[in-house]
This record gives sequence, structure tokens and C-alpha cells, in this order.
Amino acid sequence: MGSNTFRLVVFRYRPGGAFRLVDEIRDTVRLSRGASAAGIRPEAVERARHTAHLYAAFCAAEAIDEIDAVTTSAARDAPNRDEVLRALTAQGRLPVRVLSETEEARYGYLGAVNSTTLGDGWVLDLGGGSIQATEVRARAMGRSFSRPLGAVRMTEAFIGAGVPERSDIKALRRHVERTLAEVPWFAGLGDRAVGIGGTVRTLARMAQKAERYPLDELHAYTLRREALRELIEQMAALPAAGRVSLPGLKPDRADITLAGAVVIATALDMAGATRIEICSQGLREGVFYERLLAGRPDVLIDDVRRHSVLNLMDAYRCDGAHCAQVGDLALSLYDQLAALGLQRGDAGEREVLWAAAMLHDAGVAVDYNDHHKHGYYLVLNSGLPGYTHEEIAMVALLVRGHRKGLASTSPLEGVLGTDGRGRLQRLAACLRLAEQLAQSRSVTGVVLRDDGERLHATVADEGDPAVALWSAGQESPAVQRAVGRRLVVGAGGRATDRSGRASAVW
Amino acid sequence: MGSNTFRLVVFRYRPGGAFRLVDEIRDTVRLSRGASAAGIRPEAVERARHTAHLYAAFCAAEAIDEIDAVTTSAARDAPNRDEVLRALTAQGRLPVRVLSETEEARYGYLGAVNSTTLGDGWVLDLGGGSIQATEVRARAMGRSFSRPLGAVRMTEAFIGAGVPERSDIKALRRHVERTLAEVPWFAGLGDRAVGIGGTVRTLARMAQKAERYPLDELHAYTLRREALRELIEQMAALPAAGRVSLPGLKPDRADITLAGAVVIATALDMAGATRIEICSQGLREGVFYERLLAGRPDVLIDDVRRHSVLNLMDAYRCDGAHCAQVGDLALSLYDQLAALGLQRGDAGEREVLWAAAMLHDAGVAVDYNDHHKHGYYLVLNSGLPGYTHEEIAMVALLVRGHRKGLASTSPLEGVLGTDGRGRLQRLAACLRLAEQLAQSRSVTGVVLRDDGERLHATVADEGDPAVALWSAGQESPAVQRAVGRRLVVGAGGRATDRSGRASAVW
Repeated sequence: MGSNTFRLVVFRYRPGGAFRLVDEIRDTVRLSRGASAAGIRPEAVERARHTAHLYAAFCAAEAIDEIDAVTTSAARDAPNRDEVLRALTAQGRLPVRVLSETEEARYGYLGAVNSTTLGDGWVLDLGGGSIQATEVRARAMGRSFSRPLGAVRMTEAFIGAGVPERSDIKALRRHVERTLAEVPWFAGLGDRAVGIGGTVRTLARMAQKAERYPLDELHAYTLRREALRELIEQMAALPAAGRVSLPGLKPDRADITLAGAVVIATALDMAGATRIEICSQGLREGVFYERLLAGRPDVLIDDVRRHSVLNLMDAYRCDGAHCAQVGDLALSLYDQLAALGLQRGDAGEREVLWAAAMLHDAGVAVDYNDHHKHGYYLVLNSGLPGYTHEEIAMVALLVRGHRKGLASTSPLEGVLGTDGRGRLQRLAACLRLAEQLAQSRSVTGVVLRDDGERLHATVADEGDPAVALWSAGQESPAVQRAVGRRLVVGAGGRATDRSGRASAVW
Repeated sequence: MGSNTFRLVVFRYRPGGAFRLVDEIRDTVRLSRGASAAGIRPEAVERARHTAHLYAAFCAAEAIDEIDAVTTSAARDAPNRDEVLRALTAQGRLPVRVLSETEEARYGYLGAVNSTTLGDGWVLDLGGGSIQATEVRARAMGRSFSRPLGAVRMTEAFIGAGVPERSDIKALRRHVERTLAEVPWFAGLGDRAVGIGGTVRTLARMAQKAERYPLDELHAYTLRREALRELIEQMAALPAAGRVSLPGLKPDRADITLAGAVVIATALDMAGATRIEICSQGLREGVFYERLLAGRPDVLIDDVRRHSVLNLMDAYRCDGAHCAQVGDLALSLYDQLAALGLQRGDAGEREVLWAAAMLHDAGVAVDYNDHHKHGYYLVLNSGLPGYTHEEIAMVALLVRGHRKGLASTSPLEGVLGTDGRGRLQRLAACLRLAEQLAQSRSVTGVVLRDDGERLHATVADEGDPAVALWSAGQESPAVQRAVGRRLVVGAGGRATDRSGRASAVW
């Protein structure tokens, strides 16, 4: 129950394992609109009471098992806090916790570190009422602070409904600078910033529209300071009502996003950041992670990237044993080819290949026919927290290319780096060969030998090797294209090179 | 194990309930290539032995629970049948059944009637070796026959590798006519024809490419006799090797599809059919249905359309209770609006609305965010046997439009009939209002009253009606657009109009 929006999210989860968001309601309550030294205004309290009542009725009607209701700065700081709390609890039906500044920062931090690879850096959370910044060191939470520089508050204090004067924007900027200067360590936070909250998401959506970004995914998108400057200029040239015409800016955000953008831009400048990585998770997810990871004192997912992949495998009911076998074989092929100088051999490529191996059959959930195409859609649209957009695009292309022809990389070129097609071809050869070998479940490994013209693959199969040999032989063209060698497949003794089984269990 | 192709399909199923295809291998064995009075040729037997051996090894390696291997006319009719069978069983490892003509026809019939709404009409099954035609009366199997007019056989007998002479085509046509004339009842089969087999699927794919068809789905596509004529002309103008340039014609089908097309065209003409509905299921699925529906003497799915919807709900783990509530409410609203003259009120629209209600949340399996868009993709790509392409398109658009804005109908206009947008708007109003009312699980019904300007909706809720009233009120604009009335929502007593609960259980 925030200063601008009340959101209700419903998660379904298995403790310590898979989870997914299954329902969501939002209501733009604007609790802190018009708030003053006298407190939250009566109309706002009334709106809050109404929405809290609705949410309580929703939870009862949907028979939600566990309810965790939290509220933040607007209620916490209000002089008429008791009255506000009576409204928020819907006469005691919702067990609302008023989060302290530190708790609020911690939940935002938990949402961010459990859905990104943030190790050392900081989290910026801009809400309607306040801004939080939280240091992160080796994934642990460091110092944090909160200041009442939220988008709703700053809009009311500095920006009218009309076209703002340049001096209004400047005054807001100065106010933010002065406020943040009170925090001596803020200036040293640096360039690895992760941003959460509705304002930063809205700005990212606008920037994506402006650059015709090829993916429809906010999480892990990098918003550059320069793009932020352009968005501020566009918004500042229009009255509040006219800003809805800007692509990506929704009506209920049209008025408050300009002030929010100025706050974020100023904060980035002061911290020495030239970009901010968007995190679509935040406080709500942080509260949820405390339940998902109950019993873990640090409330951290061990390996966010791995967890994301396993989470999707669960959602699409992938065959864990088959995928683990394909993953083992693909990584073994990759590592051997790297040793032969026929693959690049870096950790990032390995993880992308592993993710694609784990998810290659996800599309069967849609339809076996064309399941490579469906899998491509699913990977691009389901989200893989912890992976960059470039990596997600490559995973999707590999899933698309694990059978039939390779996909065109052109729709995704805006996120793929150089030589996307070449990398796709190289990695796809490992995945395709692994998938074919795994047509026999009893294949335990494969040993490669390169004679400069031919690549000899000796397959160890505890059962009948006929299936594996026949299937693998069909990937000759893919191997030829990828590494310029003719593939020769034969059966042999026990494989000795087999990598540790990356079994797909939680 | 057919005359042209050996296919291995793997189904996962719950007896009497949900099922899905989870794996498939195919090998173009061409068992009957070069067969003569002396029998199947030794090279063909050797190819068959090799593939049978592979398939047996695959089943062992994949630990398939139940294996049902069947073979048809090529092996059945071969003078060297014993030798062929030894090869097909992979030295006794595969329990191969040689189907009689009647059994072969029956399995094809079972595949067709369990995946279409075919009640009275006939099934045409063109394989590599033979053609079967089977009468269907009130969904029961009637007379059937088989003749050796398969695509591989007819290609070898009448069509060379070069550009065929007109006289070759004519001779083939005459041969088919003479052969089918032996079956006196064939001429009366009529216009409701369902086609199965690889040739008819290939021809449908080619026709779709030629007309730039908006859906990527063969099942339930209608191939017109006129389109077939054009395809025959295009293929007959090219040598076999050149036909691969025709869109939709795969290399391993390039030689045999022309003869197959002539056989089908001639058969349709003689039966008095101007079109044929493509069925992508067939003999393999028929064999499978005998297991799925074990214990049912007729081996028929009661209601193919309903089963398709429930099957998808299962695949995407839709919430059965919620969907059933939305379905009940949507149909109740539709029926009341029809009684008020504000909906058309026909059975087809009702079933489309029901299907959309059942599947409206399917996209949550991909991601809660934008789940309406993901659901649109899933419905368009998962197949809904028994529904026409126009209906599938409307179900997908309704799922897309159950929240946020209505989708554009333009990408699907090629399959939507007249006034697609208007129908979408009218049906979507019912679905959206139902979905909003069902935000409260305790809503049991709604009664509509029309005063010519306003539509009064009185909601019966066994619990707190606040959620339902608030949610439903948000659909005022959708109702206004659809039926030209302002929506007024209020709470009232017990609903008396409630339709029977269409619970989503098998």
C-alpha cells in the first residue's frame, strides 16, 4: 500500500522451489496526494479505506492462504497515522505492517538481488512518497537511506499541471541535490545501479518505444542517462494532460513521471552512474521471497540464473532427466571443442548453452509440432531473471534452432552483439548434437577427436548405440557449418571425459 | 509403418482424460518403392529392418511404457510378407500388428471423428500404398474400402521423374476412375469429406502458402477442389526435382505429391465433393485413442470440442473453478442479452464464448504480465480440434481481449467472417464482465434488466459484494460499446437465472 498505488499480488509457490505470479490488482489510490503537516487528507484516507476493504474482500473470496500486507512512507510518516492505519487494515481484516525505512529498503533489496546478478553496487527505489538507496556489497545489504523525494510529492511541490517552467525543473533538481548531499556516502555509489519502482519502469518503457527496442521485456533493460535526458525534455515540453501522447506513458502516470525522472536523473548524476538497470521486481517480491526462502537467514536465492531456468522448466513441465542429459552432453561437447580451439570457451556462453539445453523442449507445452518455434516465443516472453537481454535472445534462438533450420537473428539484432549468427551456429551445433545423442537415454558421454578435416565423435552408450549413432549422424551439416569439420560418429567404450551431471533438481 | 514413411509417436496421457504428443520420429523408408509381383524389394526390406531396429532401441532407451506397432497395406499385401514382418519386428523386439483393411480404415476413422465434428460424411485416407474411404453415419463407422491407389504406387506407375505428359496425368485419372467405379456406393458419399494422410496435409500446406493464409494450422483447414486443380497444374509443369521450389512442398514429398493430388482430386469429383477438410490426425491417433478411451466400446470422445478445451486447460494448468465460474457468468450474461435482443443468441457463439472463458487465463503459464497476449498466442498455436479456424480465431481474440484493450482483428481477417470486430466486441463484453464479477468467488449469478438506456446488472454474492460491484463497474465502457447501454451495477438477492454450472471436470 504505497503512496501512489495499492497493489495486490498473488503468488503460487513451493517452499524453496518454483513460484509464479498468478494474479494482480492495482488501484491508483494516491494516498499522499495533498498531504500536508496536518497529515493525509480525509478524501485520501477514504479512498484508501475503500481499496483496503476491496482487497480484504478479494482475499476472502479467493481463499488466499497467507496474507502479508505492508505499507510504506506515506502511512509511516503521516501525523494522522492511526487514522490512516485503521483505514488500511479495513477495520482489522488486513494485518497491515508499517515497514520502517530499513525494512522497506531491505525488501526492495531482496527483490533486486534475487532477480538480478547484482553483487556490488546499489539499488535505487523511487516510489510515490520517497526515494530509497541501498548499498549492496557481495550480495549483502549495506547502508541505506530514505528521503521524501517520491514522484507524487515532488510533482505536487514543483510541477504544476501546465507546461513547467525551466526554473521549476531546476528548483526540483536543486532540492534533490541538497537533500541527497545530506548523505555523505551517496556520491560514491558508482555505476552499477539497479532501479525499482513504477517510475523507473515507466521511463524504461518510454525509452524502449523511442528506440524501437526489439524485446517486450522491461526487466534487465538498461536505461541510459542520455535517454533519460531526452525523455525529460519531451515531457517538460508538454502540459501534464498532453504527456499521455508520449509512447509508453500511461494516463495514470502522465503527471508524476516528469518529476520522478528528474529525481532519478539527479540521483544518478550524484552517484556517478551513467545508466541504470531496470528491475521489474521490488518490495512486493522481497516480501514474498521471505516466505519462499523461509529458513534461509540471508533470504537469497543461491544462483539466480539457475533458479530462473529451473523455474521455467517447472512452469512448462520439461522432462528433467532428458534435459539434464542434453545439458551434460552439450557442455561436454562445448568444452572439448573449446579445448580443440573450435569454440570460444567462456563461462557466459556455457551458461547460455546450458539454459537452452534445459529449455529446448519447453514449447512442447504449446504443441509438439513446431515446438522449437513455440519455445522461442516462451523464452522471449517468460522472463529469465539474471540473464541479460542479449543472453535471453541467444537462449531463445538456440531453442528455436535445436531442430529444423536455424532461425534468422535479424528480429533480435538490436540486442545481439557482434557476430550473433556465428555464435548461434557454433552453440547450436553443440545443442543439436547433444539432443540427437540423447535420443538414446543410455548414452553416457562422447569423446571428440579432431584430425583437421574430420571431427570424430566416439559415443559411449550403456545400451544399444544404434539410435544415438543414427541420430547424431544427421547433424553433420550443422557441425560442418559451425566448425568446418566433417562429423564422423562411432561407438566406443566408456566415456572418460564426462562432466559432472548438472541434474535439474532444486 | 506405412508404405512411404515409418513414424514413431509418443503420447503421454491420463486414461479418459488429458493427453499430449510428446515426441515424434519419422523416417522416409519407402517400403513399397519398386515393389512388384515378386514382393517388396530386398533393399526396401533392409531399410525397414534398419529403421525398425532403431525404433525398438529408441523405445527401450526412452523406457516407453506401452508400445503399439502397426503396419498397413504394403506389408499386408506383399507376397514376401513373412520376410517383411521379420524385418518390421526388429527380430521380435517390436510387437507389430498387420492391420486388415477394415482395421486400417477403422483407426483412420477413429482419428478423424475424435478430432473433428464429422457426424455424417466420409473419410478419405491417402497413404503411400493405398487409398481408404470410409462412410460415417451419426459418428459411427459405415462401409469402407481400400484400393492400391497410394501416392508412391501411382507415382511409380504413371509419373516419371521429368515433366509429366498430359497423357500420363490423364491415364492416372482414368485408372483411378475405373478403380473407384468398382465401388458402387462411392459416388454417393457427398460433400462432407475429411482427409487424412501426409499427401493431403502437404497439399493443404501448399494451398495455404499460395493464398497467404493467416493461420499456421493445417487441422480443420478446408482445401477447395479449385485450389487442388491449381496445385496440380503447377506441379505438372515441373520435373520432380524442380517441384521443391513450390512453397510448402518438402523435398521428401516433391516426387509423390503430384500423383497423390490427382488421386484425391479424382476421388472428390466422383464422390461429388467440392472441398475436403484437412484432419492432421489419422491412423496413429486412432490406435492411441483405443488406449485413451479404453473401456468405451465405441472409442469415441463424447464431445470433441469440449474435450479440446479441457485438454488445453490441463496443459496450461488453468484454474478450473475460476474458469467454470467465469464460463457460467459469461453464458448467463449472453443468454440474458440475447433475450433482450442485445446478442444474436446462437449455439456457435455460445460455444466460442465458453471456450474463451475456459481459456482466458491460459497465458498465465507464460507470464502473468501480458497474459492476455500470451493466451492469444497459445490458443492460435495449440490447436482446438473440433473448432473451425474462424472459431479458433475468435476464441484467441476473446482471450486477447478479456482485459486491457481489444485486439485488432486485422491479422486474422482472412479467416474471420463478416463483422468480426462487432462480434468480438459483443462477446468480449460478456467475457470481461463475467471475469470482473468472478473477482469475487462467492458471486453466484447476475440478473440483467434493460430500460432502453441503461443496463441494470443485479449481482448475487453469497459473501461481500464489494469486490464484484467495484470490478464490474470498470466494464462500463466495454458494455457501452458492445450494446449501446450504460451499465449500472448493484447488489441484490439470490440470482434465479443461473445457468447450470458447466464445471470443468472430465
